[in-house]
Amino acid sequence: MDSFSRIDSLVKSWMHVARSEIMQNFEKEIKVWTKSGRNDLVTSIDRAVENYYVKQIQENFPSAKVIGEESYQKEIDYKTSGMVWIIDPIDGTMNFVKQQDHFASMIGIYQDGIGMRGYIYDVMQNDLFWGGPEIGVFCNEDRLQKPPDRNLRNGLVEISMPFLVHNYRSLQRVALESSGVRIYGSAGIQFIHVLQGKCAAYLSYLRPWDFAAGKILAQALNLQVNTIDGCTLDMLSSSDVLVATKNAQKDIQCLVAPAR
Amino acid sequence: MDSFSRIDSLVKSWMHVARSEIMQNFEKEIKVWTKSGRNDLVTSIDRAVENYYVKQIQENFPSAKVIGEESYQKEIDYKTSGMVWIIDPIDGTMNFVKQQDHFASMIGIYQDGIGMRGYIYDVMQNDLFWGGPEIGVFCNEDRLQKPPDRNLRNGLVEISMPFLVHNYRSLQRVALESSGVRIYGSAGIQFIHVLQGKCAAYLSYLRPWDFAAGKILAQALNLQVNTIDGCTLDMLSSSDVLVATKNAQKDIQCLVAPAR
Repeated sequence: MDSFSRIDSLVKSWMHVARSEIMQNFEKEIKVWTKSGRNDLVTSIDRAVENYYVKQIQENFPSAKVIGEESYQKEIDYKTSGMVWIIDPIDGTMNFVKQQDHFASMIGIYQDGIGMRGYIYDVMQNDLFWGGPEIGVFCNEDRLQKPPDRNLRNGLVEISMPFLVHNYRSLQRVALESSGVRIYGSAGIQFIHVLQGKCAAYLSYLRPWDFAAGKILAQALNLQVNTIDGCTLDMLSSSDVLVATKNAQKDIQCLVAPAR
Repeated sequence: MDSFSRIDSLVKSWMHVARSEIMQNFEKEIKVWTKSGRNDLVTSIDRAVENYYVKQIQENFPSAKVIGEESYQKEIDYKTSGMVWIIDPIDGTMNFVKQQDHFASMIGIYQDGIGMRGYIYDVMQNDLFWGGPEIGVFCNEDRLQKPPDRNLRNGLVEISMPFLVHNYRSLQRVALESSGVRIYGSAGIQFIHVLQGKCAAYLSYLRPWDFAAGKILAQALNLQVNTIDGCTLDMLSSSDVLVATKNAQKDIQCLVAPAR
């Protein structure tokens, strides 16, 4: 296995290159396509950044497997053995298109199914959150402290709009019991808020590339990252996800309705 | 009436002083009290900043009336004649307390009921949005362009959590018809997003100090600021408020249920 400090240097340099590309492209016309529905977008930049990351990984780690949001194919039976890189080139593409703000670029690295490194880059703030179980979590070069173990009543929660509007698992109860609800529209940005202690919990339906990096970083700070019912996430499956302090997780699990 | 360019210089200098005070106080213990309910907060900093603004205004404009969020008294019959300053020292106090981010300091100036100047300071980004009907709107020293006249389907909307959870006026329909919902937890920050074209609409129940500055800035950029039904806002009353592009306003008004 390659030394992870070499990997850290490489990934940071790739993400900085990707950022420059993204910033330059704001001045040009960005091509946008829809995927599964009218609000599920992909742009020429998402594809270009993913291709760039994949090329770098393949050149430097020829035996590694790569799963990318934009090149993911349902029919492939992806394996968790060996080194697996999971990529979301631009997380929060809707924000990227409409706001040119509040989006992230993310990479997670797993070794035989165990999360080793996560990288979440808040592109517009130029803040790169990175780390893993052995080294802790950093924002650029500053070490993050473990966030306070807030309970639900004393914490802000981030709940995805569909969960809130459709009252999935009675999550409106959770909303009303909390200090307030926030919705930022990017899993990466929302993971960052929980890492920093700005929010006590985050609830959404996420795909593997949405949580691959954030799960590694959050767990390295003693945060809980599971399904709403507390089951372990399968790194290759989509699922409802609850990222939370221990206290907020407990409070939320007491309030949600049973799964139907 | 004093020249507004002198007023602009004064207000900017006061807001920069307030920002320094706020930033210094992050390192100290901030006192927090509740007001109307457990999620309606005021801190020692809100009060200190409001007192500072009021003192500056009274020294420089002795005949002006001042309405401040923290010193507002229901029993006073406030008048709109003459020069009226409406102040929200820290808008998004919950964010201020929990996140130390995503809050604003706001001042609106009315002359005989007509909005002359608005100032919204995104404290953590150090971005001051200011302007009025005659001069347009600036972010620091850069002039803002009028945002694109997006329709609802192509725009993000900001809807307050209570409106969304309680499906006020069937606003869940509006949420589902839009490109997505965002909740940032500060009227000032949400006004800024509509000014910048990052969101096409913002819907919330607001008090006079929540919309005093934003209304002036938004109208100077051809945005619509009214009640949901399109009625003119009373500058001294609380109300549901819709801030939107012309197209998004039209779309939303077709979707909402009649007021009960």
